[in-house]
Order: sequence, then C-alpha cells, then structure tokens
Amino acid sequence: MKINGISYRSLWRPSDDASSIRIFDQTRFPWNVEILELRDVGAVADAITSMQVRGAPLIGAVAAYGLVFALQDDASDEALEKAAAFLVATRPTAINLRWAIERMVARLKAVRPTERVAAGYVEADAICDEDVQVNEAIGRHGLELIREIWERKGKQGQVNLLTHCNAGWIATVDWGTALAPIYMAHDEGIPVHVWVDETRPRNQGSLLTAWELGSHGVPHTVIADNAGGHYMQTGRVDMVIVGTDRVTAQGDVANKIGTYLKALAAHDNNVPFWVALPSSTIDWRVRDGVKDIPIEERSADEVLFMTGLDSNGEAGRVRIAPLNSPAANPAFDVTPARLVTGLITERGRCDASEAGLQSLFPEQTKAH
Amino acid sequence: MKINGISYRSLWRPSDDASSIRIFDQTRFPWNVEILELRDVGAVADAITSMQVRGAPLIGAVAAYGLVFALQDDASDEALEKAAAFLVATRPTAINLRWAIERMVARLKAVRPTERVAAGYVEADAICDEDVQVNEAIGRHGLELIREIWERKGKQGQVNLLTHCNAGWIATVDWGTALAPIYMAHDEGIPVHVWVDETRPRNQGSLLTAWELGSHGVPHTVIADNAGGHYMQTGRVDMVIVGTDRVTAQGDVANKIGTYLKALAAHDNNVPFWVALPSSTIDWRVRDGVKDIPIEERSADEVLFMTGLDSNGEAGRVRIAPLNSPAANPAFDVTPARLVTGLITERGRCDASEAGLQSLFPEQTKAH
Repeated sequence: MKINGISYRSLWRPSDDASSIRIFDQTRFPWNVEILELRDVGAVADAITSMQVRGAPLIGAVAAYGLVFALQDDASDEALEKAAAFLVATRPTAINLRWAIERMVARLKAVRPTERVAAGYVEADAICDEDVQVNEAIGRHGLELIREIWERKGKQGQVNLLTHCNAGWIATVDWGTALAPIYMAHDEGIPVHVWVDETRPRNQGSLLTAWELGSHGVPHTVIADNAGGHYMQTGRVDMVIVGTDRVTAQGDVANKIGTYLKALAAHDNNVPFWVALPSSTIDWRVRDGVKDIPIEERSADEVLFMTGLDSNGEAGRVRIAPLNSPAANPAFDVTPARLVTGLITERGRCDASEAGLQSLFPEQTKAH
Repeated sequence: MKINGISYRSLWRPSDDASSIRIFDQTRFPWNVEILELRDVGAVADAITSMQVRGAPLIGAVAAYGLVFALQDDASDEALEKAAAFLVATRPTAINLRWAIERMVARLKAVRPTERVAAGYVEADAICDEDVQVNEAIGRHGLELIREIWERKGKQGQVNLLTHCNAGWIATVDWGTALAPIYMAHDEGIPVHVWVDETRPRNQGSLLTAWELGSHGVPHTVIADNAGGHYMQTGRVDMVIVGTDRVTAQGDVANKIGTYLKALAAHDNNVPFWVALPSSTIDWRVRDGVKDIPIEERSADEVLFMTGLDSNGEAGRVRIAPLNSPAANPAFDVTPARLVTGLITERGRCDASEAGLQSLFPEQTKAH
C-alpha cells in the first residue's frame, strides 16, 4: 500500500542489494517512518524480538529470509537446523513463524548445501508473494460486500466501515486482511470512511490502523472503543470488518479484546459483522472457542500507562490510574459464531459455521 | 466515604468557619488530595467552571452556598436575582444546578433580606443533607441485590461487580449512586470486588472510581473498556451497576459512552444490569431515549490525547494518534430499557419500564 503516494510492501528485497531485506521499524510508527536494513540472522532475530516487525504473516516471512542469511557462511544441515531453532525461539507462540521456518527447512534439505542460499531466496520470495496473493484474494472477496452496500445506498454519501485493532498491510507483507477490501474499495473510487477503534490498551487502532489508512489516503476517524455501539445504534456504520488471531472449526473468532462487544452491537442493530482471515488462521482441532481457546493475560502496565508523543515531540508515557490500583489485561476475547455474519477467506466467503467452513475447505473434513 | 481511614463528604461547612465551605479540587484527583476553601460567589463560580467540582448533585449544592455568599454584602431582591443568574450561567446544561438555584431563590424570596443569609445556610445545608439521604436510600436498595448474590453464592469467594465511569461519592455530597450499594456491602463485610472500566476517553473510571474505591479500601481492578465482555462471558461478573445522566419515562438510560456495550454483554450472558439514580434524573417528558435524547459531541482532543502522571511525577499528556488523524467523541450513549434489569431509586427498585417507574412514582402519572 502507499505511504504519501509511494507504494510499499512491509518487507522487500532490493534488486540492487539482493542479499538483504528492508523492513519498517514498526516500533517507531506512527511518529516516524524508518526503514531498516537486515542482512544477518542476528539482526532478523532482534527485529522480531523487539517487535520492530509484528503481525503473524510478516514475522514468518522475515524469519524465512533470516534463515537464508544464516546459511551464507555455512549451509550444512547442522547450521540449517541450528538457525531454524534459533529463529523459532524468537517468538515461540507465533504459529506462522514456525510454519514458515518448517517450510524453508523442508525445501532446503532437499537441495545440496551449495545451492541452499539461492534456493532459500526463491522460497522466501515465494512465501512473501503467496502472502500478498492470499490477502489480495481476501480483499477481492470482501470488496464485493462493500460494492453491494454502495449500490444498495444508491451510490449516495459514503460507505461507513468500523474496524478494531490492526489487521492492515503492515501486519502482513501487503494488503492486510480486514483492511484489504477497504483499500480496494477506496482505490476503485468507492467513498469509504472507516471508524477506527482506538483499541485499548495497546492502541493498535489509533496508532497503526489510523496511520496506515491516513498514509494511503483513506478517510477515517479515530474513536474511543466505547463509541462504536452508539454509531451502530444511530445508523452510522454499514459494516464491521475485523481480522482474527484464530478461528475455530465451528466459526468462533478469537481476536483482540473488545471485538466481542462490537459483534454484540452489530448483531443488536442488524449491522453485518465480517471477519477476514487467511485459511492458515483456522484451527481445525478446536470447536468451542469460548471454552477452549486460552486467553493470554498481558502486563497490567499496558492498562496503567499510556505511551504517545509528549509535548516535546518525543515518545513518552503517562500513568493513567492511581498508584495503588491494580489492573488486569486480557489480550483477546472470543466472539461466538452466532454473532458473526460471515468469514472472508482467500477462497471466498462462507458462514461462520462448521458447514460453512467445510464448504470452502472440503479437504479438511477428511483430515480432522 | 473515607480517604485513608478518615470520613469525608465532598462538600462541607466547617463549624469553626461557618461562612465558608470546603471542597476537594477534583482536577487534582487522583494524584493529589487538595482541599479548597470557598468563601465568595466568584470562587464558587470559578470552581464550577474549572471543574474543580463536578457531578450534577455536587455542583448544585456548591452553587447553593455560592448564592448565600453573594448575599452577605447585599441581600436585596436585585442582588439575589443577579447572583442566581450568574451562577446558573456557569454550567448552563446542568439541570441540578438550575434546580438548586431555583429552590434557593424561592426560599429566600419568602424571607426578609436581613434574614436571607441565615435562611440560605439552612436551605443549602438541607440540599446537602437531602442529597446524602437520597443516595443512602439508593445504597440500601442496591445493597439488597448484593446481599442476595452473596447468599446465592453460599457466601463463598467474592461478589464481582462491574461499573463504568464514575457515579461515586465525589460526584455527589456523599455515597454516590452506583457506588453507594458497593460501599455499604463492603462496610458490612461482604467481600466485594469491582471491575473498574477505564472509561475512555476521559478515564473517569481509572482516574476517579479507582481512586475512590482504593481510598475507602474497596478491592478493585482497573480494566480496559474492551475487557468487560470477556469477563462476563467467562463468569467473572455477578452484576453490573452504573449511574445515569438521564432516564426516560419508559426506562431508557443515557449514560457515559460505552454503557450500552456493557448492557449488551450483560444481556448476552444473563448478568444483571442495574442502573442507580436519584429520581431527579428521570425525564418524564421523554420516552424514546435512542431517538429523542441529543448526544453531546465533545472535543476530539479528549480522544487524541491522554493525560496522566509523567515520568517526573507531574501531570502531563501524550498524543496517542497520528498528527493527521481526526477523531470523534460522542460523550453519551443510550441503553434501551429492554437491556436494563432494573432501576434503583431512593424509593426502591423497579423495572426499567413505564409501568415500573409509575409504580414507584404514581404522582408523575398525573403530572405528565
């Protein structure tokens, strides 16, 4: 997507410096746009650990290049396995990271050590391109929904969307998931406007989604997480679209804390509530998400403090609760499938149900 | 209620300095507890305008004393009317302020100018005492609900309550509305624990409610507004209790933005959702709250910036959204009566419905 008129991916390998990659330092968003050069496995590991790269698909792709960098001096099986273990350990819970590394290792073990660096770049490039293709397909399937709304409104006014957290291009290699249809609608001239949930406590909405949309030129308005119900109740939201961290086999949706409240409000006001996801996000082994998805509890400090730009224009933080008050910080919640209008995947849209998912992914019926 | 073991009202007239009142400078909460002396009408007006006093009942009571102060040099009808108009203008939308001033003027016009200062103190003291009595009655009627939960739980564990915004003692002369039953339950030994919604964008929950509860010794945990649905879904909320700015004749509830989302989550999880209010909050002229209550739009800066204690221990603020992103800030939303388990008033509890309200306030049936 674009930053001030120039198209970027969130990860690229420059043609004139093809043994390195470029990423944005996402810890500096939205206040600074800084491009980092990574050319060795240690720098890649640091970028993942320090959250300079974030978003499951992007982490996997960056790690894939990290594995290639590790082989430049020693491409033996031992070096390959050691580097793979090192990279997986940078973010042990990231499923895409493990998936990308396992895919790379399988591919590279099949070729002679002397060919592994060249083959590795081909495979890592393929991981990136496939991520872009998957998200582009999600975008097309979601775009149809926005077009339908625009036509139903007689092409008058604008299409008002609401999103929570950040499921945008900077969490993937390009396009994003929930934001992909919005970028496509904007690019083809549909006047979209996005209500951006701040997404406390980490403010991925006001910090990242607002920055992404603004940089690409998409009209948007930041709102407190508390406000979305009121806007739905008063007819100012045409559709809610969010990403997800995990979808169960029956269509329950784990996503950033607060998603469930927006799904309730959408349901209460007959506003469509769609979830965009690559099929790699579906956990076919789990059915009841409310019962069986463990919810990560993060640091209370994320609730008790707020970071931002201080009056000197520097990153700072303020404490926003009394010194003696404790806080709790569940990072995700689960939206039951009954509140989800449907799922948007790279293969198309389906009901948030076992039957819906199996209609798009029939091969999974046998596998599980 | 108590601050570190000492009982306070949020407004008092010291017996040894009875021509003045004391208030807390609420703009300094929760970082500092500072008591202000007010002894002339200008200082009272400044305290209201600068929000050193806040909360509709408290503003009305403080203004009543302001009117008495104004009469100390000149207690003529002209001076009385001039001071009344001056005080009402400090917060034109505050219904309780107008109500308190009109009550004072009616009382004072009935006595000779030379008796007005003495009569004024009696009347202002009565306004304070009546506010305390009303809230104490609300507390007793709400306490019964907490007792029932505690007994239903076999007096095991704790009673988990969730509240939004600040409807506590510092918004009234004492007790508060939504927090009154909680203080009473705590004081009689029921182990209550309160989930305190941060209440973005102005953080009245994390700043004021958490401070109040902590100062009185009530166990509580600050949470992001996004988290309450998850806690209800996982059985960790026994009852939601909130205050309100306006209740309609059919029981719709206008309250701080985000209240509606918590009511939806409570309804979805069979968690009782109660609203505590003095009957002066009921607007008998309005029925459909969603349609007919205008919602105040406040400054976007409240969303774009966050104030708190900086690393130097001083009040500071940080910007938490990109420089080019706009924000919107509706201050209230309306919870339809169908989502409200019931109303807790000084006369007792009732259904959130026309029939329910008329059963407690039969005299209003004729009046409207």
